[in-house]
Amino acid sequence: MPKTRNWQWYIEKQSEHEAHMHAITRTIYSGNTKFQNIGIVESPVHGKMLILDGDTQSAQADEFIYHESLVHPALILHSHPKNILILGGGEGATLREILAHKTVEKVVMIDIDKDVIELSKKYLPEWSEGAFDNPKVKTIYMDARKYLEETKDIYDVIISDLTEPLPDGPSHKLFTREFFKIVKNHLTPDGIFALQASKADYHYLKLHAIIYKTVKSVFKTTYSFAARVPAFDTMWGFIISSDRGDLMQVTKEEIDSRISKRVERILKYYDGTTHQHLFSLPRYHREKLDEETEILADARPLVAIETGTIF
Amino acid sequence: MPKTRNWQWYIEKQSEHEAHMHAITRTIYSGNTKFQNIGIVESPVHGKMLILDGDTQSAQADEFIYHESLVHPALILHSHPKNILILGGGEGATLREILAHKTVEKVVMIDIDKDVIELSKKYLPEWSEGAFDNPKVKTIYMDARKYLEETKDIYDVIISDLTEPLPDGPSHKLFTREFFKIVKNHLTPDGIFALQASKADYHYLKLHAIIYKTVKSVFKTTYSFAARVPAFDTMWGFIISSDRGDLMQVTKEEIDSRISKRVERILKYYDGTTHQHLFSLPRYHREKLDEETEILADARPLVAIETGTIF
Amino acid sequence: MPKTRNWQWYIEKQSEHEAHMHAITRTIYSGNTKFQNIGIVESPVHGKMLILDGDTQSAQADEFIYHESLVHPALILHSHPKNILILGGGEGATLREILAHKTVEKVVMIDIDKDVIELSKKYLPEWSEGAFDNPKVKTIYMDARKYLEETKDIYDVIISDLTEPLPDGPSHKLFTREFFKIVKNHLTPDGIFALQASKADYHYLKLHAIIYKTVKSVFKTTYSFAARVPAFDTMWGFIISSDRGDLMQVTKEEIDSRISKRVERILKYYDGTTHQHLFSLPRYHREKLDEETEILADARPLVAIETGTIF
Amino acid sequence: MPKTRNWQWYIEKQSEHEAHMHAITRTIYSGNTKFQNIGIVESPVHGKMLILDGDTQSAQADEFIYHESLVHPALILHSHPKNILILGGGEGATLREILAHKTVEKVVMIDIDKDVIELSKKYLPEWSEGAFDNPKVKTIYMDARKYLEETKDIYDVIISDLTEPLPDGPSHKLFTREFFKIVKNHLTPDGIFALQASKADYHYLKLHAIIYKTVKSVFKTTYSFAARVPAFDTMWGFIISSDRGDLMQVTKEEIDSRISKRVERILKYYDGTTHQHLFSLPRYHREKLDEETEILADARPLVAIETGTIF
Repeated sequence: MPKTRNWQWYIEKQSEHEAHMHAITRTIYSGNTKFQNIGIVESPVHGKMLILDGDTQSAQADEFIYHESLVHPALILHSHPKNILILGGGEGATLREILAHKTVEKVVMIDIDKDVIELSKKYLPEWSEGAFDNPKVKTIYMDARKYLEETKDIYDVIISDLTEPLPDGPSHKLFTREFFKIVKNHLTPDGIFALQASKADYHYLKLHAIIYKTVKSVFKTTYSFAARVPAFDTMWGFIISSDRGDLMQVTKEEIDSRISKRVERILKYYDGTTHQHLFSLPRYHREKLDEETEILADARPLVAIETGTIF
Repeated sequence: MPKTRNWQWYIEKQSEHEAHMHAITRTIYSGNTKFQNIGIVESPVHGKMLILDGDTQSAQADEFIYHESLVHPALILHSHPKNILILGGGEGATLREILAHKTVEKVVMIDIDKDVIELSKKYLPEWSEGAFDNPKVKTIYMDARKYLEETKDIYDVIISDLTEPLPDGPSHKLFTREFFKIVKNHLTPDGIFALQASKADYHYLKLHAIIYKTVKSVFKTTYSFAARVPAFDTMWGFIISSDRGDLMQVTKEEIDSRISKRVERILKYYDGTTHQHLFSLPRYHREKLDEETEILADARPLVAIETGTIF
Repeated sequence: MPKTRNWQWYIEKQSEHEAHMHAITRTIYSGNTKFQNIGIVESPVHGKMLILDGDTQSAQADEFIYHESLVHPALILHSHPKNILILGGGEGATLREILAHKTVEKVVMIDIDKDVIELSKKYLPEWSEGAFDNPKVKTIYMDARKYLEETKDIYDVIISDLTEPLPDGPSHKLFTREFFKIVKNHLTPDGIFALQASKADYHYLKLHAIIYKTVKSVFKTTYSFAARVPAFDTMWGFIISSDRGDLMQVTKEEIDSRISKRVERILKYYDGTTHQHLFSLPRYHREKLDEETEILADARPLVAIETGTIF
Repeated sequence: MPKTRNWQWYIEKQSEHEAHMHAITRTIYSGNTKFQNIGIVESPVHGKMLILDGDTQSAQADEFIYHESLVHPALILHSHPKNILILGGGEGATLREILAHKTVEKVVMIDIDKDVIELSKKYLPEWSEGAFDNPKVKTIYMDARKYLEETKDIYDVIISDLTEPLPDGPSHKLFTREFFKIVKNHLTPDGIFALQASKADYHYLKLHAIIYKTVKSVFKTTYSFAARVPAFDTMWGFIISSDRGDLMQVTKEEIDSRISKRVERILKYYDGTTHQHLFSLPRYHREKLDEETEILADARPLVAIETGTIF
């Protein structure tokens, strides 16, 4: 019997001074696409993990927390979401959660990196569960901003599931005020925009707060929320936004009722009580959002706060 | 100017397969007490950190999250807390939070390890802010169980702020059904018991769930809740319990009102909205509590789940 | 251009209290054979690395130091080596070095783990440089001890290039006094036996000294020597042995002369001066060899000294 | 009994891609002097370790290897060393080794950082063994270059035991051609200069080779040598130099004889055989020295090659 000691480690840096060590039992894939470095590894705790440019994108054991948080509040708060647009979302799990809603008729997914989608289909089929083959789905490989600048299509819900806006990464022009205005122009009047919006942990709330303030400068109603995703080793931030004024005026009982009517399967994270958890933010989180004054613009795009050396 | 590179690290193990790396800029103290290994170090992210037997106990930057979560729900949900007992709580921050309540007349603190208290007073004065010198406070150095078995004193609120029940540590007999019955016998009829109750993260909920079920087997009303404490690199679990049936029947507005009337200073974590956040648990958390069937007893005390080697 | 940060690490444990961290840019292969866990990774410093059960076996950049040390002293000190036996040596580099000697007519290689050889041929062709296809070579997949117990073949030089004798690994019965007697029975009267013999660093000389004393109890002449192999993060020990009394009576000029006559290509590590370096051991090394009294026997085989947990 | 897990680590970076992890059981001192960051820690393997700016300077268990290599070849190759100068050498172990020579009448030690000497006396008395109190010794706290530029004193042996010439560290002007000329001007005609000269490992020989070529450009005779110092996790390079032509023309028997006549106690590392080991360099080491063409000058001082980030 081979005796496997822990010798392979994935070390994810949080900042210059902190990192998380994950023992890995197997490297399933490691290489470079045209846009990013990609790793698919297996951890005894988190199962398969997808890593882009050194950052965990999602992990088998807890990706449901991330993807349910990103998708369901947006779709449940909408009265009847039919046409959905995903920006990014390469693994296909955002797609999977959207397709669980019976109201959905069409999903367009725009991802710049075809390799990530192909590798996810091949090595991470548990994420997409065949979603890419659903006839309601159309996948387009291009820059999300370019797509929105060219298309005339209008959506009920737009979900942004893009990578962190690292200076060298492919996403840094997709978190600016100008871009969010373009997004808004492709929503119906009661449309909803939801986005993953970086870490939202006590020591790392600034980036999230900046994105929040940028989105808020474009839409009438904007909420921040955060979920604990263990594989990310932090709280993860999201934003939901709309031009409707009554977006959050729904009871937890109504949320449970909408889920049971509209969603085809049992959710593991999101329900009425979890909704109340997510949207009742701890005091320091609310205060840091209030204090933030920066806004991202094309002329001043988001660059990573966490630079520098850890040793 | 000396150039300091990151060469000192505090590596906290979560399990056989995971660890968190903290760069440390200074070791303020490291040694052994009669009961445990103690380290006081400084991190550029977390400030001063108190480490017992390799586990973070609290950190300067975010101990307010832990201590406000442990103390304020218990005292605010009580109508008029006067006499308080702390089990453990060596750093003095639990004491500090209790003393912020104007209703409090007497606090007794029982800690087995005098060295931890003395070292905390000397090196971590920001934690206790002079609380040990408050005339309302009486500190007794002895085993918490022995104290409760011998005393006839009765308290409005009892707060357990003990170390993890490691097999070799000093706390493993303080998390059993028998012990919780002894605790109950020293509460007034409407008294409240709150305790720190181990990690409560998705992958590490079992210990918390077992403690929850054990407390629940003794009291009429028992709630689990969890706060994100970044220095612990996880969600941290707490339990609040009482023989009152109406413990949680209070609105968030009423909580804010009680805080403003009874608490002498501004809180940074806890308020009505945070209360709603804490007590609206994510779905998987509720389900794992429901599924747990183990109960701890003197004949079957809690032992650490995380054993084994990481390399 | 993808931006690759160091996120994959190979951490090799030296003892309970020490480890070496290697950033890896690519995992070429990771899996289990019937006998051991195998990893093939790429380091920016060491090039491709072969890892068995968590221990570095050889690395592209410096395997020449290890393999030249293991092979050339033995063949050069022999007057005319024709028939050679290798025990282990899966990567094929020991074979490569042997085949560089013009005197060699036949090499038999016995390795229990066919998968290691096949994976080395596929992923590490720089090691063997086609040596496995040389018509002088015969490869047999079986336990080395079983082979020697059954064969009547006699060799000029026998080279043992086996993995560390870990309790659970496939090699622990191949480092005993009884086994070395079997080896001796398959050598010609002036035959030479050379073996890799574990770490030989100041803090980790015991295992090497024990193997040395065990071999010495079987042969008339036995020498220990050690080479610095950076990828192993230590000094690596070797032993050379014979029943000849004059084994080492050769000048460095004679060694250079034999190399230039007999070896087909330029060596990068071994020559007359290096020979003098290798066989002039530092004082503490000589003393620790002298002090060692243990002998390995079938009834008391070698088990790893470095056990236990590092965190 | 307190249960101590390995939670404190000293991680020494070798390059952007490699690091060595040392568990530490105790931090004895950590702070900043006027010139450098200093740590004194205890490792279960290496005993007490002195760390300046993140680099190991010496460790209790194996400092004898480093200090015997630095001092004894220089003093033994001299016919009758009386007056000795040490540049740097704060811990006092270089001094200790020099004082073991009966011929020595005077030792002057120049160190810029009085704090390192005071802390070493207090926390590392095993290094100096009272050497600072020896009446033959004079300690001067000043920049070594300034001292040599001002003094008219002449020495039999000058030993440079300075820290690595990091750009921000205090030693970068003490490794240039101009400086070595100043050193030479303070030697007697048959005087000897020995210096610690950075890592000399296969992947990290460049800095050593540059220093070697710089010294060689100033003196008639220059030798490189290297010793394995486990606490440094590498081979450590030294240089010995003189204007004598016959410096190395001494047999190993003569070395042993001089040691027994002149040195008051038993050495643990250095003797005639070790001398032969040290000065018979592996082939690649000799070749890399030969290939090096750079020379350090005041206008082009040595800067650290190992810069950059490891994560």
